Amino acid sequence: MKFCSHCGSDAVTFSIPQGDDRPRHLCGGCGAIHYINPRVIVGTLPYLEDRVLLCKRAIEPRLGLWTLPAGFMENGETSEEGALRESWEEARANVRVDDLYTIYDIPHINQVYLMYRGELSDTNFGAGPESLEVALFREDEIPWEEIAFPIMRETLEHYFADCRKGSFALHRGIIQRKL
Amino acid sequence: MKFCSHCGSDAVTFSIPQGDDRPRHLCGGCGAIHYINPRVIVGTLPYLEDRVLLCKRAIEPRLGLWTLPAGFMENGETSEEGALRESWEEARANVRVDDLYTIYDIPHINQVYLMYRGELSDTNFGAGPESLEVALFREDEIPWEEIAFPIMRETLEHYFADCRKGSFALHRGIIQRKL
Repeated sequence: MKFCSHCGSDAVTFSIPQGDDRPRHLCGGCGAIHYINPRVIVGTLPYLEDRVLLCKRAIEPRLGLWTLPAGFMENGETSEEGALRESWEEARANVRVDDLYTIYDIPHINQVYLMYRGELSDTNFGAGPESLEVALFREDEIPWEEIAFPIMRETLEHYFADCRKGSFALHRGIIQRKL
Repeated sequence: MKFCSHCGSDAVTFSIPQGDDRPRHLCGGCGAIHYINPRVIVGTLPYLEDRVLLCKRAIEPRLGLWTLPAGFMENGETSEEGALRESWEEARANVRVDDLYTIYDIPHINQVYLMYRGELSDTNFGAGPESLEVALFREDEIPWEEIAFPIMRETLEHYFADCRKGSFALHRGIIQRKL
């Protein structure tokens, strides 16, 4: 942030406001404090019988790698509505949500993921503008070495383990920066 | 947003960028798109034997009403770390987290709440700068008519119902705008 979005001043510093305990984008012109907070990513794990739906990414980051449909939650929607919207946008997938399935914190990139598990209600899926390809995979068909993000790999691993157990609990996790 | 935080231009409109499907704060000067997304509120339900800890708010909104300790999740922390930080800041409470307990969407104010349930590890709690008073309440002592926010009331109701059942599942909910 170079300029204050309230007054247009260029006197924005990253410093600790009075009464606070951490640096914020602080305007020396009008005194506005601009808070920047973590963002929520919402998505689904769509399944059909023993297969799950994955999207091959048409955009960076991780273009060409596979992921579950997910994206930034928008203002004015619930997390489940956002997850269904992203599933439609990226995979033209219609999903009947069973339940919230995984919650992951990724603190080094200031993200919280909420992933919902649900059955595909039809097979009319297909690539939206952010996907090169959308397909269903059995566990042994999953391109494990080409999964775009650790959160997605872990969510898939939980899913197939829970399928074997026959019960689907909520899983919480943290993805730490790779050292 | 009146001015672009990238270039300082005052040509910021709230309009739909090319290739998008909803209005954003869009700079006519440099072309920057400024996304505004929901924020995450993290907190705890601290209990000790048959009582729960509540804070009387020293700040607006709902000054003077009671709430569970919670606040905006900060960049660089996990949701559980944020919940523990808020519990310390508002109530000087040390909480041993059992598990994530409630997740609420509040779409009309663009918020997602993540509330963790946990036992107080000591009774050295007390009012932080945002609280007038901090105290423990049995179910029949809770000032139900003076609870600051519906999400907190519902979380407390779930808790005491689960206490009677003897099991604590995750609860999801949506708080809609009052009509």
